[in-house]
Amino acid sequence: MERVIKIGLLGLGTVGRGVYRILQENQESIEKRAGVKLEVKKILVKSLGKDRGIVIPEGVLTTDLADITSDPEINIVVEVLGGIHPTLDYVLEALNQGKSVVTANKDMVAEHGQRLFAAAQKNNCDLLFEASVAGGIPIIRTLKQSLAGNHIEEVFGIINGTTNYMLTKMTQDGSDFQEVLQEAQAKGYAEADPTADVGGHDAARKIAILASIAFNSRIPLHQVYTEGITKITADDIAYANELGYVIKLLGIAKERQEGVEVRVHPTFIPKNHPLAAVGDVFNAVFVRGNAVGDTMFYGKGAGELPTASAVVADIMDAARDIIRDVPGIIGCTCFEEKPVLDIGETHSKYYIRLQVADKPGVLASIALVFGNKEVSLKSVIQKEATGKTAEVVLVTHRVLEQNVTDALMDIKQLSSVLEIANVIRVEGEE
Amino acid sequence: MERVIKIGLLGLGTVGRGVYRILQENQESIEKRAGVKLEVKKILVKSLGKDRGIVIPEGVLTTDLADITSDPEINIVVEVLGGIHPTLDYVLEALNQGKSVVTANKDMVAEHGQRLFAAAQKNNCDLLFEASVAGGIPIIRTLKQSLAGNHIEEVFGIINGTTNYMLTKMTQDGSDFQEVLQEAQAKGYAEADPTADVGGHDAARKIAILASIAFNSRIPLHQVYTEGITKITADDIAYANELGYVIKLLGIAKERQEGVEVRVHPTFIPKNHPLAAVGDVFNAVFVRGNAVGDTMFYGKGAGELPTASAVVADIMDAARDIIRDVPGIIGCTCFEEKPVLDIGETHSKYYIRLQVADKPGVLASIALVFGNKEVSLKSVIQKEATGKTAEVVLVTHRVLEQNVTDALMDIKQLSSVLEIANVIRVEGEE
Repeated sequence: MERVIKIGLLGLGTVGRGVYRILQENQESIEKRAGVKLEVKKILVKSLGKDRGIVIPEGVLTTDLADITSDPEINIVVEVLGGIHPTLDYVLEALNQGKSVVTANKDMVAEHGQRLFAAAQKNNCDLLFEASVAGGIPIIRTLKQSLAGNHIEEVFGIINGTTNYMLTKMTQDGSDFQEVLQEAQAKGYAEADPTADVGGHDAARKIAILASIAFNSRIPLHQVYTEGITKITADDIAYANELGYVIKLLGIAKERQEGVEVRVHPTFIPKNHPLAAVGDVFNAVFVRGNAVGDTMFYGKGAGELPTASAVVADIMDAARDIIRDVPGIIGCTCFEEKPVLDIGETHSKYYIRLQVADKPGVLASIALVFGNKEVSLKSVIQKEATGKTAEVVLVTHRVLEQNVTDALMDIKQLSSVLEIANVIRVEGEE
Repeated sequence: MERVIKIGLLGLGTVGRGVYRILQENQESIEKRAGVKLEVKKILVKSLGKDRGIVIPEGVLTTDLADITSDPEINIVVEVLGGIHPTLDYVLEALNQGKSVVTANKDMVAEHGQRLFAAAQKNNCDLLFEASVAGGIPIIRTLKQSLAGNHIEEVFGIINGTTNYMLTKMTQDGSDFQEVLQEAQAKGYAEADPTADVGGHDAARKIAILASIAFNSRIPLHQVYTEGITKITADDIAYANELGYVIKLLGIAKERQEGVEVRVHPTFIPKNHPLAAVGDVFNAVFVRGNAVGDTMFYGKGAGELPTASAVVADIMDAARDIIRDVPGIIGCTCFEEKPVLDIGETHSKYYIRLQVADKPGVLASIALVFGNKEVSLKSVIQKEATGKTAEVVLVTHRVLEQNVTDALMDIKQLSSVLEIANVIRVEGEE
């Protein structure tokens, strides 16, 4: 008896087209591996007439959501529309109609995960979202299943391809932020309004999702400390290189006794760290578990086919669960409530670049302030700049962020300090 | 209602102890994540009295297999004995008694996979073996589930930690094979009889398993071309470095129109390849899928806790399946029969090091032979050696292996060629 699972697709943009293509092109092996035939019965689009560069059989496209959510033959709804409104309502409707849902929507999962999981659980459906973080890299299934025996201590990684492309370029060419941004926009790697990427907000949603799974505690997006790469200069990149580091925009989540740290910011990491070699638009996620030790997962974090690869894997899992009548076999795992620590309560090393007056005693006065605030220094570089100014670059030992913030408040008051040019956290070394 | 799944452990060596420890130490989170309490009811050991450095409650240890396989309360049997006899019989007995089986045994899975899967299917049980390849790296679940929507084109990687440690040391210190082997043995990284590791046989079993899953076609172990690292010298390492490569022992599996290539051998890979940075005892597996593109999975390939991490994840999956009454939801996927190509039918680039007489015309005569056999050369280095001999190092373009073999047969006959010192395949670049 051949069993067919029918799918409703919400959206036929880049990822939707990729999902449709993979289901067609790899049809035979997908059917054998899933143990069931998968068929896209309906696709919700805004306009029936638009040319999408792909042949869709007659009658499959629809502009009416009810053609999908009210069709009892459709068991799986795949959401690749993006955005939150009206997408969230569509997805809740699908779950309430008893459809398993596969989504690639990080915004929706990060901000409304709780409502979505509650609806999935109530209706005994799968809610799968592998594609929402790091595109084709199977990090969510890895955390939920493959590393489930571990106490996860840290998850951190490069989870935004646009900014990784830009930082890679800046490192290779010594070019400045604005220049590289324009190049990335010309290549289609950065949006016309690049705020979500370069401001770190895209990465914040993804690390909120990863941290929630890793620590079994829902991390509200507004509690993720978020800092983008807009202040990174060619000078910072050059100093990083001189000091043995590269600069990456990292999403970082760590569990400590007092609570969890969840943050996104540009980060110095040692050149020999596995993440340092991850260039261009590639993503990689580093996970440390108490049993497995250090692991890393690398691949393309975006794009039509890599993202669709993750969506199709979720569809296959959902289909298997439906045939065996066990949807929801792996559901929400946020069964704890751990406090999210304020950024002032986190610990890190810090790279600090200061513009100072080029006169005797400046360094001593700066060092004194740091000492008073219990910030111990690991290395100091002083360089002459133009005319009467000099540049001081410090790297601290591992210290409490609040102490650094307090020290910098006092340092700003020093008459010989002209500017705190940049402060960047250092991670990935003992 | 609290549900408890009871486990029988076969063996309490390094990995068995790790499994027991993780199940104890991470008990609370494992119970919440699996949705069920896991309890080790019985452990099969050879001797009850031996001190294993771990406290086991009274009555848990047994020397009688039947205490496990005939106990209807035990639903999951975890095999961490190793070896094939009598382990295979024990595991078949467990499956035939309707127990799901989790194993870390690459030898058994690679050589007797077909019988084991048939027994699992017949008895409607899970047969899970994540720990059998690359220790803590979740590569099997990744291939079976997360990348299941892809047509997998290539899987290759560093899947033997001992040899990777040795090659890393040889590269860092310029030391010779024998010297490093002794050091590895002293550190416990290599066995007293190191043949399985340095001869490539351990890696061959693992790549046979990975290829079988990736290509959905059972790869018999005897069809895996296997070459170890015993012939690698400090000279080869130095030439690799000079030419922009590092030497790694790789397991390689590629699908081509004509069939599949499955082989283990020392390999030149470019220094900027993600696998090149994988040092010491770490493992990493590179997978190329037609949708996801290039991905890589990195972690510890052996050791008590990393291996146990994979075993425990499998136990949790098996437990979930048992509670939901769906064991075997993801079973054997070898539903095709693809021919395994002979090594002569494979394509690669080749590094070839020759000892020749130091006189005019030698290089020309060598180049002529290669040309006659359609082996085109990419680069040639000639170095003076002691007295009247010189060393010629060639790197070919991508060619058919049989042509290289034929050319070398002819080259051996040239009176000016004293020795074919080494031939090493080059992979990981276009």
